[in-house]
Amino acid sequence: MTDRQQLYQDLTAELRKTSLLGSCSAVLGWDEQTNLPPGGGEHRANQLSLLAGLVHERITSPRLKELFEALDAANIPAADDTPKAVNIREAYRDYDRATKLPQKLVEEISRVTTLSQQAWVSARKNDDFSAFQPWLEKVVTLKREEAQAIGYGDGIPYDALLDIYEPGATADIVTNVFTPLREELVSLVAAIRESGRQPDVDILTRSYSIDKQRTFGIDAATKIGFNFDEGRLDIAAHPFCSGFGPGDCRLTTRYDEHHFPGAFFGTLHEAGHGIYEQGLDRQHYGLPMGNSTSLGIHESQSRLWENFVGRSHEFWQHFYPAAQETFAAALSDVSLDNFHAAINDVRPSLIRVEADEVTYNLHIMLRFEIEQPLIAGDLQPGDVPAVWNEKFLQFFGITPPNDADGCMQDVHWSAGLIGYFPTYALGNMYAAQMYEVAEADLGNLPDQFARGEFSRLKEWLNVNVHRRGKQYSANRLIEVISGQPLSHEPLVKRLRQKYSALYGL
Amino acid sequence: MTDRQQLYQDLTAELRKTSLLGSCSAVLGWDEQTNLPPGGGEHRANQLSLLAGLVHERITSPRLKELFEALDAANIPAADDTPKAVNIREAYRDYDRATKLPQKLVEEISRVTTLSQQAWVSARKNDDFSAFQPWLEKVVTLKREEAQAIGYGDGIPYDALLDIYEPGATADIVTNVFTPLREELVSLVAAIRESGRQPDVDILTRSYSIDKQRTFGIDAATKIGFNFDEGRLDIAAHPFCSGFGPGDCRLTTRYDEHHFPGAFFGTLHEAGHGIYEQGLDRQHYGLPMGNSTSLGIHESQSRLWENFVGRSHEFWQHFYPAAQETFAAALSDVSLDNFHAAINDVRPSLIRVEADEVTYNLHIMLRFEIEQPLIAGDLQPGDVPAVWNEKFLQFFGITPPNDADGCMQDVHWSAGLIGYFPTYALGNMYAAQMYEVAEADLGNLPDQFARGEFSRLKEWLNVNVHRRGKQYSANRLIEVISGQPLSHEPLVKRLRQKYSALYGL
Repeated sequence: MTDRQQLYQDLTAELRKTSLLGSCSAVLGWDEQTNLPPGGGEHRANQLSLLAGLVHERITSPRLKELFEALDAANIPAADDTPKAVNIREAYRDYDRATKLPQKLVEEISRVTTLSQQAWVSARKNDDFSAFQPWLEKVVTLKREEAQAIGYGDGIPYDALLDIYEPGATADIVTNVFTPLREELVSLVAAIRESGRQPDVDILTRSYSIDKQRTFGIDAATKIGFNFDEGRLDIAAHPFCSGFGPGDCRLTTRYDEHHFPGAFFGTLHEAGHGIYEQGLDRQHYGLPMGNSTSLGIHESQSRLWENFVGRSHEFWQHFYPAAQETFAAALSDVSLDNFHAAINDVRPSLIRVEADEVTYNLHIMLRFEIEQPLIAGDLQPGDVPAVWNEKFLQFFGITPPNDADGCMQDVHWSAGLIGYFPTYALGNMYAAQMYEVAEADLGNLPDQFARGEFSRLKEWLNVNVHRRGKQYSANRLIEVISGQPLSHEPLVKRLRQKYSALYGL
Repeated sequence: MTDRQQLYQDLTAELRKTSLLGSCSAVLGWDEQTNLPPGGGEHRANQLSLLAGLVHERITSPRLKELFEALDAANIPAADDTPKAVNIREAYRDYDRATKLPQKLVEEISRVTTLSQQAWVSARKNDDFSAFQPWLEKVVTLKREEAQAIGYGDGIPYDALLDIYEPGATADIVTNVFTPLREELVSLVAAIRESGRQPDVDILTRSYSIDKQRTFGIDAATKIGFNFDEGRLDIAAHPFCSGFGPGDCRLTTRYDEHHFPGAFFGTLHEAGHGIYEQGLDRQHYGLPMGNSTSLGIHESQSRLWENFVGRSHEFWQHFYPAAQETFAAALSDVSLDNFHAAINDVRPSLIRVEADEVTYNLHIMLRFEIEQPLIAGDLQPGDVPAVWNEKFLQFFGITPPNDADGCMQDVHWSAGLIGYFPTYALGNMYAAQMYEVAEADLGNLPDQFARGEFSRLKEWLNVNVHRRGKQYSANRLIEVISGQPLSHEPLVKRLRQKYSALYGL
């Protein structure tokens, strides 16, 4: 074995051990959301804080520094996409960022965001932005410091934050797709709202037994390709997917007897994330080549299964007979077409997490347009409510009645997650752009769905996305798959086609 | 602060951190038994092995050695029962044993017992002792090495193993109570079997809805004092209780629609363990003063609630009306007396974990009489089946029809748990001896049970057992509580009284 081979082996052993330790935190985090008794919160926080400290020690250890230096990790060309190069370069990327942040800043961000989230909970409850404002100010100040510490080349400070969640993305890249997308969507939503054809959405709030929702959701998630021999579905207040490691991926959802789409599409959404996790290359577990490439690509997988597959007419050609049988009292008098129209209802609304697939992206763009000047120092936190409401009127034609359901609706900013929101809308665009290629490669996908066949699409995603790990950044992956840079057009085209048919535009 | 105070603070900080890390393993262990998908086994084993390694590093660290030396931990008198002395002395005890074992031996035991348990599963399934024998030989050899490495003063090698689970216990101490207990029990069982009055146990295998069993069991566990705001009850194939730390204690049980006592008394049993865990002193969490003192004392708590309380006539005076209402189809034609007799059926049987409270102890003594010569080298593993069957006939009047339900019925030996069995029967004796004192202190306990009052007994146990942590070894604790050394007599007296009444002896 050459020296370099030995060094590489030592590095990957270190990295795998750190991932394994991090995956223990994931189990504790999942348990916290699904099973923790009320009195167990403080002890769980202590456990998670201890593990976070041990992981942090490992990812900034002198031993890693030695190995990266000996492997000349800082100088591996970005274009080298061989597995070893990717593993070294991307691991170094994480190390570099972790060590650039002064320990004092890391601790201060952790402390402030914990308190800030508590302040947000009560400020939102009391609809009192002034109680949250000082915390938002502290968070923004710290995130600006973080951006300075990380650095942003020729870009702007916001790029440094975006890059945490979506490596390689910049405000420029995002703006270039968001600007035309916004224009298209605003006009599409206006057309939909003016249509004389509107679905009867009340059918979705009839009584749907929770036990049956669960069984029906598990059946659908299984059919699209989530493997329950290597995963579970449980209940959590805020649904999520957590891949612990090879052979163990946990999905969560929440049920409401009087709202069928919530749990069902939530399950498909999380199953989409789970199919990505289950599709990662096990040989590279714990290494960049065995890890998802970005939050945006992760979201592309969940949105693709939830919306492009799960809200298609053909998906329900297959599933609707079973749905009618399972939920006979609710659906026996509802036609397939009316059901399909109801689950694709589009209308401007206040809350992002309840938005349909068209207006959802507008919610994201609004936040993107506020985050950037906040980090640039061009917008003061105290002015956020006014700017929010002004933009909301402009995007949706609605003025939020209060801040609780306006600029304080999301936990993200209080938790320090600035630069995170864009990944949700990028995910929709990535999904549309890769789906176009999948359709070209695999023939008529909707026909397959109508027959209950989802395996060809799943396998295509396994090969083209999942097994590639971090071989390519999100932007580059889209180019590799489609031969084109990221564009808003595939998404707009999909949405226009689908909703023109549904609303008779 | 004096130097010694500072050293003590440093030591407790180290110990608490190690406990916290160990409690992360406990969460993963619990999840493995309750929630793990079939494919997640290998990853979970990797996670647990990593955490075990990190804990082992910490409990044998040079830093601890320094602190123990500076605090002169090896010379703290065994009689000093002040909290600081206990915390230092008992922590040193653990450190001393951990560092006495050569790393190579620890790894070999871990490796061999993992393989040996796998071999046991298939050997038991095929009733093929010869396939298990080489593994039992390896395990016995390694445990003998372990005993030598730990040391046993003036005693015998078996004492070193016993001391792992029941600190302070020796083969002599155990023999002194087991010998007379055996004689008494054999004669009591014979009298019971000869009685003309035998209960109708078929009523217990009627149909009991699993959902209702669960609710009924949770209600009873709550009433005896397990706090579900700081705990849960879940399903596991092999029931257990795991106290993660302050505010979070998990119980498990298993349900059989056609066997009421299994889950119900299993739940009370685990709740008894849980009440001990929940009663530990939180100020000393992570330190010996905040930890249970021995497996035997832990078992005394579970047996006390399961048998002395849960199988008493007065307990059912309170609960039986609700039971009859809940399980109307099964119990409406069954009188309280007949129900009470059925749940106290005594008869010799093959399997330890299914045995009643009288014959149970005989199962333990049989194992104790085999383990000792095995470790002494006076009994060859190949001769275990013959000796087992001979003793079984002598103790129970039954010859096991095969080794699967004979000497291969328990996982313990394959897992290297030699010296563990005696703690189960010690627990029964500890329970009886402390219960006599509780009755003297608290007035008529059965009257309280008949009124559904369990809090005085629980609080008595909190004060006399739980909050004392490791202040006293099990033997010493029994003396402190009762003023007498451990004796078989209180248990024999209890059993004779109870079963004389039930069987008209």
